[in-house]
Amino acid sequence: MGKQRRNVPVTLNADMGEAVGIHSFGHDEVLLEFVDTINVAGGMHAGDPSAISHIVTQAIGRGVTVGAHPGLPDIAGFGRREMVLNAEEVRDLIRYQTGAVAAFVEAAGSRLHHIKPHGALFGMLSRDEELMDAACDVALQYEVPVFGLPGTAHERVALRRGVPFVSEFYVDLDYNDDGTIIVNRSGRMRAVEEVEERARQALIEGTTFSITGKEIEVRPESFCVHSDVPNAPEVAAVIRRVVQLAE
Amino acid sequence: MGKQRRNVPVTLNADMGEAVGIHSFGHDEVLLEFVDTINVAGGMHAGDPSAISHIVTQAIGRGVTVGAHPGLPDIAGFGRREMVLNAEEVRDLIRYQTGAVAAFVEAAGSRLHHIKPHGALFGMLSRDEELMDAACDVALQYEVPVFGLPGTAHERVALRRGVPFVSEFYVDLDYNDDGTIIVNRSGRMRAVEEVEERARQALIEGTTFSITGKEIEVRPESFCVHSDVPNAPEVAAVIRRVVQLAE
Amino acid sequence: MGKQRRNVPVTLNADMGEAVGIHSFGHDEVLLEFVDTINVAGGMHAGDPSAISHIVTQAIGRGVTVGAHPGLPDIAGFGRREMVLNAEEVRDLIRYQTGAVAAFVEAAGSRLHHIKPHGALFGMLSRDEELMDAACDVALQYEVPVFGLPGTAHERVALRRGVPFVSEFYVDLDYNDDGTIIVNRSGRMRAVEEVEERARQALIEGTTFSITGKEIEVRPESFCVHSDVPNAPEVAAVIRRVVQLAE
Amino acid sequence: MGKQRRNVPVTLNADMGEAVGIHSFGHDEVLLEFVDTINVAGGMHAGDPSAISHIVTQAIGRGVTVGAHPGLPDIAGFGRREMVLNAEEVRDLIRYQTGAVAAFVEAAGSRLHHIKPHGALFGMLSRDEELMDAACDVALQYEVPVFGLPGTAHERVALRRGVPFVSEFYVDLDYNDDGTIIVNRSGRMRAVEEVEERARQALIEGTTFSITGKEIEVRPESFCVHSDVPNAPEVAAVIRRVVQLAE
Repeated sequence: MGKQRRNVPVTLNADMGEAVGIHSFGHDEVLLEFVDTINVAGGMHAGDPSAISHIVTQAIGRGVTVGAHPGLPDIAGFGRREMVLNAEEVRDLIRYQTGAVAAFVEAAGSRLHHIKPHGALFGMLSRDEELMDAACDVALQYEVPVFGLPGTAHERVALRRGVPFVSEFYVDLDYNDDGTIIVNRSGRMRAVEEVEERARQALIEGTTFSITGKEIEVRPESFCVHSDVPNAPEVAAVIRRVVQLAE
Repeated sequence: MGKQRRNVPVTLNADMGEAVGIHSFGHDEVLLEFVDTINVAGGMHAGDPSAISHIVTQAIGRGVTVGAHPGLPDIAGFGRREMVLNAEEVRDLIRYQTGAVAAFVEAAGSRLHHIKPHGALFGMLSRDEELMDAACDVALQYEVPVFGLPGTAHERVALRRGVPFVSEFYVDLDYNDDGTIIVNRSGRMRAVEEVEERARQALIEGTTFSITGKEIEVRPESFCVHSDVPNAPEVAAVIRRVVQLAE
Repeated sequence: MGKQRRNVPVTLNADMGEAVGIHSFGHDEVLLEFVDTINVAGGMHAGDPSAISHIVTQAIGRGVTVGAHPGLPDIAGFGRREMVLNAEEVRDLIRYQTGAVAAFVEAAGSRLHHIKPHGALFGMLSRDEELMDAACDVALQYEVPVFGLPGTAHERVALRRGVPFVSEFYVDLDYNDDGTIIVNRSGRMRAVEEVEERARQALIEGTTFSITGKEIEVRPESFCVHSDVPNAPEVAAVIRRVVQLAE
Repeated sequence: MGKQRRNVPVTLNADMGEAVGIHSFGHDEVLLEFVDTINVAGGMHAGDPSAISHIVTQAIGRGVTVGAHPGLPDIAGFGRREMVLNAEEVRDLIRYQTGAVAAFVEAAGSRLHHIKPHGALFGMLSRDEELMDAACDVALQYEVPVFGLPGTAHERVALRRGVPFVSEFYVDLDYNDDGTIIVNRSGRMRAVEEVEERARQALIEGTTFSITGKEIEVRPESFCVHSDVPNAPEVAAVIRRVVQLAE
């Protein structure tokens, strides 16, 4: 790792706006105080037009940047159930949702900040270079970086295609030995102490332990915080502290 | 009023299972302790198959009966935005959702208990006899009563068609002078003391005050409790007490 | 094969009502003249309530029986893109759609005839016994047979669960060596002469050639005719002729 | 009328890409030969990402410009059933769909050409200035004209907001006395001779007859041709001829 090391501050990001009409969850409003950038659901796994409008306006108003968070077309499964799609379909899905979210970001007087695929789509792209290639077409169109996992197809294809890549670290998800993560059906809460230790190890040592106990390399350029766990604000605060101490 | 007076106990009902995948809200589990029967969303305004399965199993397991709660096909609007539909479309929508919910009720070893339309559809049927007629076709097919508002098209058409009618009272919604209710976009919370007073007046005097201050006749055979207000369990408890005192 | 040989006439079935609002395709009305039973889409991959109502009424009115044709929740992909679902989700999806279709069949004065899963779900059930087991729960609830592929999990699980099984043959789809079929994204048209030869071989010899050229055993108790190919009526007519000659 | 007379050629436009997965209809490919610009469904009443991608690529490749055709969120009703929405919801719906369609137009190397609302939404905006105002916010954001009906809220609000306005004429729909049109549930076919006469009268005399027989003023700057009638290509050809003769 270490390649593409950039002298940019490590950021915190969070998935937000994952509402469906009056159905929402998480700590969107509170978390906005803690993060630098958010990933806004594009309407396929969650996020109707009014929900997008609401969270984008809130975020931009507080100086938080906004990226698109495109997902699989599966509201009931919240985009966490894999589907067999070809590269064309993936490109079209990501383009559609990115264009939709960008419309709200621009209306709020800002510019789209990045693209970060959601859930099962995120996992599929980490393992399939052809699908990731399709995602890069849209990133190039919008001239934005993609967020993803270092050492996986996310990074390999982004580098090859000349798409700026932001390497994420997930304090609350389990890692496989190959650096991909295990996308669960529901959020998982870790104790704040465990979060702190995992964040510190990732940031300082550049490693984390996979689910089999193997030490694997990571490179946190942005920490992802999930809003749908009860202790989300505490988790965000502790990661922020770790990041500030390391700077 | 007073016609069709039945010597049956006054019940409490609640809308439940109004989830969309992992998006849920309300106090479903807690409220199950307080109500006699629930109205389960049929998948059009909320309620995917797994959400229906979950709440139906929970309810039947605790001896709570289950009715169908069909709504308009509008997840983002939660079925609270009126749509212009003809009688055929209304009949087909209600039949589809009722059949789907009944499948889960029967799988859990019980029988469908009633039909109560949701949100904007409920309102449309209270004002349009042709649409209510379409709903009655499905009630007759499943041999179940419909829940609705006394003195409106709900009751008039049910009586004409020979469909058993259960007259509801809403402690937390505002009434128009003609006995119809105002379906809001979001739930409204009333203080428990106000709920108690409204429930008592409705049950003892058979009246309530409309939004213009006019005294109108009501006839609570079942009280509807909304699960999506913070004090839902307290509201249910106080209504139960009022009902028991009146018996 | 040959086990479970029943002295029942060989039938023709077709998927119908696969409309989405005004979007329909195929030769539903014409094909109704040629088939014994139809499989009606349940609203997840196609088939809104009014489309279901329309085709069910037409079919029952002409003495054609109606089965449920539940599919994956994927309108844009027409239920032909596999999704990773667990057994609970499969059971709930099939129960929901079967209950909905049954409601229309009963309203038309008939009884649900069978369950035949659609597209990618059909394929998933042919390879996964646990998922097929979930489907059988619903078949037992409605006391109807399942249609499927002989020698696959379809038949094995149905036999084990005591669910009547109707062995299908597809003249217009390609078979794998293990008796499963290749579900394509779009319909495939074969020349009528080829259809006739394939139907005859399947019915008389009890065999067909897989996509690798291997001779595999089949047992046509019902031929499936797809309505979305231009020569659908001719295909149906020639199969009917083959069946009549064989009786 | 006559105000805002521009020395621009009269154009032909058509709604296209109104597919849902494999469900499509109309004469999209053929009609592309006859029209100057198309209105592409944004995914709410029709038009999934892949359908949008397909038709946009086709159109841009032939030099046909592309506008967004946002509709109500109602696939089963094809956006032809009115819904009660507030201005915020209308703005969000139009912004979402316009952003999504624009993403595909830009990916194909072009720029969004205009916005033309679909079906019931088109009708709602012709009668409600507040809702039309919301639509104009999005037109201003994308710096594109709106297509609409002269003498209605469409034109009044566009003029007030400084949004370029293109006055349409519909040869195949019935007009009310106030210049609004009657949006039917299904397409209506007129004989080519009648189309020719209506187009000529509209273009030369600047009038048409309303459904009550009253002569009302119209101002065809663009003729809308519907692709879902059997004689769509002939209709387009005859209008093109009328337009050329009038130039």
